[in-house]
Amino acid sequence: MNQALETSVVRVRGDVVIATRDRVAIERALQIRVRIGDDERVLSTTMRTPGDDVALAVGFLHAEGVLGGAPALRGAEQVGDDSVRVELGPDAAAALAASERTFVTSAACGVCGRASLDGLDFGDGSRLPGDGARVTAAVIHRLPGALRAAQATFDSTGGLHAAALFSLEGGLVAVHEDVGRHNAVDKLVGRLLLAGELPLSNRVLMLSGRASFELVQKADAASIPIVAAVGAPSSLAVERAAAAGMTLLGFVRDGGFNVYCGAERVAGLSDADAA
Amino acid sequence: MNQALETSVVRVRGDVVIATRDRVAIERALQIRVRIGDDERVLSTTMRTPGDDVALAVGFLHAEGVLGGAPALRGAEQVGDDSVRVELGPDAAAALAASERTFVTSAACGVCGRASLDGLDFGDGSRLPGDGARVTAAVIHRLPGALRAAQATFDSTGGLHAAALFSLEGGLVAVHEDVGRHNAVDKLVGRLLLAGELPLSNRVLMLSGRASFELVQKADAASIPIVAAVGAPSSLAVERAAAAGMTLLGFVRDGGFNVYCGAERVAGLSDADAA
Repeated sequence: MNQALETSVVRVRGDVVIATRDRVAIERALQIRVRIGDDERVLSTTMRTPGDDVALAVGFLHAEGVLGGAPALRGAEQVGDDSVRVELGPDAAAALAASERTFVTSAACGVCGRASLDGLDFGDGSRLPGDGARVTAAVIHRLPGALRAAQATFDSTGGLHAAALFSLEGGLVAVHEDVGRHNAVDKLVGRLLLAGELPLSNRVLMLSGRASFELVQKADAASIPIVAAVGAPSSLAVERAAAAGMTLLGFVRDGGFNVYCGAERVAGLSDADAA
Repeated sequence: MNQALETSVVRVRGDVVIATRDRVAIERALQIRVRIGDDERVLSTTMRTPGDDVALAVGFLHAEGVLGGAPALRGAEQVGDDSVRVELGPDAAAALAASERTFVTSAACGVCGRASLDGLDFGDGSRLPGDGARVTAAVIHRLPGALRAAQATFDSTGGLHAAALFSLEGGLVAVHEDVGRHNAVDKLVGRLLLAGELPLSNRVLMLSGRASFELVQKADAASIPIVAAVGAPSSLAVERAAAAGMTLLGFVRDGGFNVYCGAERVAGLSDADAA
């Protein structure tokens, strides 16, 4: 799947002007359709970079809590270039309706479009520090380079967010790129769910940008205990991760990082936990 | 309004570990309530950085086409910390219903949550190159530095997007920061709308990040002819800007920039238009 489009461009560098060609990241609307029995309708439309659309739709529904783990998922298929149909079992109807009541329309970003605050999921803190997931600082230091090396399209367009999953030893498990950072995470989780690999309780999620509330929420839904971001976290991302007992790392770059919560999962840091 | 929150953090730089304090950008949910006559309800909830909430709500409704310019706006007020009530005249009811039908719930990002593609506004190309807005490359080269200098909170958190409006001579008109890039633009446009300064047809919008479809759409709704972004544009941002006859600049940094469409508004480039 081609994720970039060639376009004409006037390039200005100081006083030098060149009419040339450039590549931009493709952004296009994807319709997520849901079918239960004979009832089919459009649940949401999201702007995304084409590719892994089925994984995106499945990951999105999983983060919304509609799949009940996965048993409600009967099938998912691409329908044309910009539409995916997900078939759910009748037992998903209640969860789907609850999600829609809360979100009114379930928005791919997990927050936009929500008409009520009541549904904001803050986790229950059930993921205890004793889940056994541990990484070393040396592994964390290697993540930004490994992420960048895995970003095929970014290099040609500079326009895509990336989300990558690593083992606790720093081995790359999967990487996805998209114009939307939430889409990149949905694609990652959706693909691994389809491969039967959830929960992802011994994995590290690495994000190319900033960490916001919805990304931490999506990681938690997939049971990922450690989230690392090249950029800054927001206040609500820190709150959400702390409430769920997760580990949140920010500014992971240039041989350093900040631990905002869950320092006990980073070997050697437990004694230096947040002052 | 304080846009950052102090939090405890473990800072790792190579082998050095320090338990210290850090500042993170505040992210919190804002409820946008709309009232027409006796009918009041929640139109949308968006994650935003507190501050200029009334401007955010007004700018958002303007971009949605609900205000009809501004005449439908009767009033707007903060209701508690995280809620804004916008009062509209009865003539706004039809536009509001149309927007809701199209968007199902109007999402602050302008795209998420939309259940139908039909409402995707591609503009009508009515903004002709002959609108008279012109800038020089020298002015463009100065924008990134001027934007960065105006970003108060970014420096302390690294976690906020900024949107700034400049005159055609490069003078700063207004700047807003937010965890959400679409919010920063809504706040900017909303504040200027409330000040009676729309249309913004002799202004340049400068974005601290990438340029996506929805940001170009919001700029077009405010009649801003020139959009410049520090980061990359998406394919749909280029399409949308070209269809509306706008000028779109990307990678505006380090003494250079790329012109994706509307090169005739940059003095000296018209002869080198896209090959």
